[in-house]
Amino acid sequence: MYTLEKPISQNCQDSATKTKTKVAIAGATGYVGQELIKLLLQHPEVEITAVASNSNEGENFEDIFPGFSGLLSKTFCAVDLEALAEQSDVLFLALPHGIAASVVSETVLAKTKVIDLSGDFRIENPEVKSEWYGSAAGANKNTAVYGICELNKAAIQGSKFIANPGCYATAAILALAPLVKAGLIAPSSIIIDGKSGVSGAGRAASLKTHFNECNESMKAYQLPTHRHTPEIEETLSKFTNDEVVTTFAAHLVPMHRGILLTAYGTLTKPVSDNEVMAAFNEVYEGEPFIRMKPPGKGMPETRWVKGSNYCDIGFAVDRRSNRIVVVSAIDNLIKGAAGQAIQNMNIILGIDETKGLNQVPTFL
Amino acid sequence: MYTLEKPISQNCQDSATKTKTKVAIAGATGYVGQELIKLLLQHPEVEITAVASNSNEGENFEDIFPGFSGLLSKTFCAVDLEALAEQSDVLFLALPHGIAASVVSETVLAKTKVIDLSGDFRIENPEVKSEWYGSAAGANKNTAVYGICELNKAAIQGSKFIANPGCYATAAILALAPLVKAGLIAPSSIIIDGKSGVSGAGRAASLKTHFNECNESMKAYQLPTHRHTPEIEETLSKFTNDEVVTTFAAHLVPMHRGILLTAYGTLTKPVSDNEVMAAFNEVYEGEPFIRMKPPGKGMPETRWVKGSNYCDIGFAVDRRSNRIVVVSAIDNLIKGAAGQAIQNMNIILGIDETKGLNQVPTFL
Amino acid sequence: MYTLEKPISQNCQDSATKTKTKVAIAGATGYVGQELIKLLLQHPEVEITAVASNSNEGENFEDIFPGFSGLLSKTFCAVDLEALAEQSDVLFLALPHGIAASVVSETVLAKTKVIDLSGDFRIENPEVKSEWYGSAAGANKNTAVYGICELNKAAIQGSKFIANPGCYATAAILALAPLVKAGLIAPSSIIIDGKSGVSGAGRAASLKTHFNECNESMKAYQLPTHRHTPEIEETLSKFTNDEVVTTFAAHLVPMHRGILLTAYGTLTKPVSDNEVMAAFNEVYEGEPFIRMKPPGKGMPETRWVKGSNYCDIGFAVDRRSNRIVVVSAIDNLIKGAAGQAIQNMNIILGIDETKGLNQVPTFL
Amino acid sequence: MYTLEKPISQNCQDSATKTKTKVAIAGATGYVGQELIKLLLQHPEVEITAVASNSNEGENFEDIFPGFSGLLSKTFCAVDLEALAEQSDVLFLALPHGIAASVVSETVLAKTKVIDLSGDFRIENPEVKSEWYGSAAGANKNTAVYGICELNKAAIQGSKFIANPGCYATAAILALAPLVKAGLIAPSSIIIDGKSGVSGAGRAASLKTHFNECNESMKAYQLPTHRHTPEIEETLSKFTNDEVVTTFAAHLVPMHRGILLTAYGTLTKPVSDNEVMAAFNEVYEGEPFIRMKPPGKGMPETRWVKGSNYCDIGFAVDRRSNRIVVVSAIDNLIKGAAGQAIQNMNIILGIDETKGLNQVPTFL
Repeated sequence: MYTLEKPISQNCQDSATKTKTKVAIAGATGYVGQELIKLLLQHPEVEITAVASNSNEGENFEDIFPGFSGLLSKTFCAVDLEALAEQSDVLFLALPHGIAASVVSETVLAKTKVIDLSGDFRIENPEVKSEWYGSAAGANKNTAVYGICELNKAAIQGSKFIANPGCYATAAILALAPLVKAGLIAPSSIIIDGKSGVSGAGRAASLKTHFNECNESMKAYQLPTHRHTPEIEETLSKFTNDEVVTTFAAHLVPMHRGILLTAYGTLTKPVSDNEVMAAFNEVYEGEPFIRMKPPGKGMPETRWVKGSNYCDIGFAVDRRSNRIVVVSAIDNLIKGAAGQAIQNMNIILGIDETKGLNQVPTFL
Repeated sequence: MYTLEKPISQNCQDSATKTKTKVAIAGATGYVGQELIKLLLQHPEVEITAVASNSNEGENFEDIFPGFSGLLSKTFCAVDLEALAEQSDVLFLALPHGIAASVVSETVLAKTKVIDLSGDFRIENPEVKSEWYGSAAGANKNTAVYGICELNKAAIQGSKFIANPGCYATAAILALAPLVKAGLIAPSSIIIDGKSGVSGAGRAASLKTHFNECNESMKAYQLPTHRHTPEIEETLSKFTNDEVVTTFAAHLVPMHRGILLTAYGTLTKPVSDNEVMAAFNEVYEGEPFIRMKPPGKGMPETRWVKGSNYCDIGFAVDRRSNRIVVVSAIDNLIKGAAGQAIQNMNIILGIDETKGLNQVPTFL
Repeated sequence: MYTLEKPISQNCQDSATKTKTKVAIAGATGYVGQELIKLLLQHPEVEITAVASNSNEGENFEDIFPGFSGLLSKTFCAVDLEALAEQSDVLFLALPHGIAASVVSETVLAKTKVIDLSGDFRIENPEVKSEWYGSAAGANKNTAVYGICELNKAAIQGSKFIANPGCYATAAILALAPLVKAGLIAPSSIIIDGKSGVSGAGRAASLKTHFNECNESMKAYQLPTHRHTPEIEETLSKFTNDEVVTTFAAHLVPMHRGILLTAYGTLTKPVSDNEVMAAFNEVYEGEPFIRMKPPGKGMPETRWVKGSNYCDIGFAVDRRSNRIVVVSAIDNLIKGAAGQAIQNMNIILGIDETKGLNQVPTFL
Repeated sequence: MYTLEKPISQNCQDSATKTKTKVAIAGATGYVGQELIKLLLQHPEVEITAVASNSNEGENFEDIFPGFSGLLSKTFCAVDLEALAEQSDVLFLALPHGIAASVVSETVLAKTKVIDLSGDFRIENPEVKSEWYGSAAGANKNTAVYGICELNKAAIQGSKFIANPGCYATAAILALAPLVKAGLIAPSSIIIDGKSGVSGAGRAASLKTHFNECNESMKAYQLPTHRHTPEIEETLSKFTNDEVVTTFAAHLVPMHRGILLTAYGTLTKPVSDNEVMAAFNEVYEGEPFIRMKPPGKGMPETRWVKGSNYCDIGFAVDRRSNRIVVVSAIDNLIKGAAGQAIQNMNIILGIDETKGLNQVPTFL
């Protein structure tokens, strides 16, 4: 009965004569895939041309995600990257880890811009990659640019192949890079305690994500071998002459969305709150998606960023132990995945970085 | 650090030369108030001129709701309706029940259009109102139009004073009116079992909304005296010559957002699924926010409407018991409150009914 | 490191010279199976002799359920009922629906007492069974006694084969039987709206029980074909000369444990609250696990029975609509499954009905 | 209607001729108070003689906590410690922080044994106490024994005044003391990241514990000034010649019960997993409530201890960063409060330490 006469974000574009950017999404039936589609549907300057999924090929997107009923009448096609490249200016890959490495070819990259949301292209150093990812990492030379938008913008602008950062890695790097860059913390002292909602575990049915097995409980996992560790270390190391070695522990918390990350570092010298704020401001001045909590104004909570592309950051200097504690909060599916991917797309396309990403946090 | 250069929905309006509608919100620190502000910030044709709250007068909106940090720098003013009327073309009242009745004066209504989200003006029949609301209901003649958008659009269009429907009432009336109108169910047979998330209980701290007192538990409440009962009966009665008398039970469920409502009625004659669909289609044809679930395509779930203004409706005919079961799902804060209020505003203003209300459901 | 020197409930039994009852559990890796084991470990007069599971044969119980570490060092054996019958005085079957019907033989029943927790033996009338369960129901004559303890105690006492009632059926029958028996409600008027936590859906991993797919959402399911319907109707019909036909709707609610059931019936005559209480008292006087909420003392909430074998029942007479609304609350895994099964065992064994079932509700 | 003929744990005691220990609880309307009562009702060797609460004086316990309906018919008396001392062999104080310090007199201690669950008597060093607790700490000499059962048993045995440890402190000290004692970690390197369910925040209604304000969100709080910090440092310092200085961050997680605590320390030398296990075993050998997770057998999860007095501990050696990560899990209301208090009582009384504490974890 319901016929949406205009695409969801169309009201802005009625007067637009400008041609829209064609985007395709491979891996559209996972949580990151559907979040990409949700955000892209509300992006004023793009048009979704194809949604691909091998497991649901031939089915209708609306039947898999009834929340989109009336909003996107598309049939899933197969995950054929060369075919998708033909139909798109930008191709988002939200495939399980290990697949992108084998299908992103020069041919594909010659036809379209690729933004990969898996871990396949995030690590630069081949030895480190091999150590943490094994043979699944692929033997190809990694030509992707690491898409941590606020810290690597110049490189992203000129790129046509982006490795979108991991969710924990995004929260950790954004929380720590300014302090490492300013030399305020010892590079070998960093400990990172990350806590994530369950959406980070993906949509595949398994005992570990069964409601009764994870609701009303907490646990640490993949300790101490979580693959976001080398991603964090490699990126932070670019901001210092020393090598950054961290201990990172990931934890599962019974909620849908949100990463709260608490990072600890030993101060290299006594610092005031103002000096710390200055270090953050130097890096994030003018960045639309970073919101610093000034001392005394509370600490980040995931509910204040839920549903948005924001990363909220707060800190406390603990003079007794000579450490700083930094807390960052993101929506793992948005700033930690789909939102940052679109932010990368905007940067590549040279359009306003906030286009399609101006959702107000949903709070509750 | 973060300065939002453009209001959140501004990118659409850059080219707009049209003057925006001025809106004010009284009672802006409750859940409905902040939801109104969130949606209005993303509405392309309005401008928020004032946020009022007696309890937080003089404080900054962003300090009370840090999720809006950088998005709305406004100080709460006092709830003075005449002053707010001066500053607004449309004034939303999200005040506790019983207040609006005493402050909405002819003077206010002469200056601005009022959309009241409390229960104060929903009941037409003064005897019924007095029976269910007592003296708190106020002695004034009720001149408000009942704002159930899909069923009362003509009256809403010409009105400047709207009583926005209750959350359960919205879900119940939308689920049942087409069947009552088509004479398919006996008016005296209707039983309504409503289940709501906790956001419906409001933001005031109390033992009953304490996390530990309502998480992992369910209960029925206000049985059988919930004030949405006469609202449902009075509205449904307009679709039949008989008087509708229902039994309504409200239940609290441990989740934030969403009403799932299951309504039961005795069939007046054997009907096919197609006949039932036809009865719904006759009333809702072309309505952008009603999504019917055709038989065999699953039943509504609150997650598929969460974060949106949709009302999803499904049904099952139970031939054994000669009854029909209708299930409707809404986001209680949006279609059940703030979203429908904005839909009413759009109708009054004569603009596209979906303006500012095209959020894709957030699912998880 | 931790060696439990005495079984968990052993401290009571040190002085006991009495031989303990040997119990075996088939299907011990589901939620009902592990709940049975948890309760039986704390039962002072039983000894667990075998835990059986085909899917985990050869594995250790503690490795599957680490919460039992140090409490039950048993290896899963295969589900061979004749072998299990040899090792037990009472054999609990917590197998998926459809299996028990084919494996409970005369040989098994000659050796041990069987308490079956599936739906296979609950329906007496073969035509009704075939209509709702199909061929899976088995062709065997059903010789099991329906184990609704408070209402069928005499038959249970003499039995050695019990069909343990369904979870919704338990909550519904206990809420309604006294009213049907007293003739206070019309047998054809009963509507039952049941709401259950997710533990009722079992432990098998599936998309529908994935945390992200059911948390923060509600839905109706199996409408109107839920198999507890004929179980409720057949049992309630025994308390009246008329045939009971009901409409039953089951709903999934995002919480672990608990069923809240709201039942609606048309009154056959005007009744006072005291008359209703008298009807319940006549049936439940002295029953240790039924707790009536007197009028004015609040309604049942699942948290007040969580972790216990209680069924709390409250009601409200709605004189406007000439109906009564009855609300019952149980822990679906205990009174709705494992607890009632043990209560049945206690009755059969002729020991105190509350043995091993005196857990105080856990509340939060 | 329901009359419980025998107290809940009575079946064990029928044959007992032994006189039961009389216990009273002051502050019985908080979460810790009701948890004490729940556990004590199931303790075979105690009798509850009085429940005290100033805010609910004269009301019936069952009316405040309907889950106990039929289980404890007691009227709240006022919190008059001298009167309560007359009626008890053991007096549990579950009062808000700051009250016990002013009411535990020599007179009280001369009449009864006191187990205080507040923070008032936990800190030994008066300067440290004054720094963290301020004047609220009281000027009295602290004569209480710190009741961390597994590590201070000899002192507890001879005591009649116990300061029951804080919830986070319990989880932290049990996780770290064996490593500090064995000299495996550097005393100045310890970082503790604690995550707690909401029951730790108490029963008083407040915005911060409102369901809609804490469900589906995480936050850090009281950073870096949480009062459990000096408690942890003072206790751990007893196991080494160096002063232990830690950084401790507490986090709120949307669930009822459970603390998961992740502690990080720099290794003083390369160690094998076996050496670490040996260090733990040396301290916890034979302790009934400590369950070590051997390497390769998974890490602790709060669900595996929920509802029980267990503390599960696991660890991972991170050779890359030369650190050890220890994870401990407890039920904050049991091992972190009421359960440990009863364990302390058992030790003082010289009875089996596990009496009344043999609950199997509830898992879901």
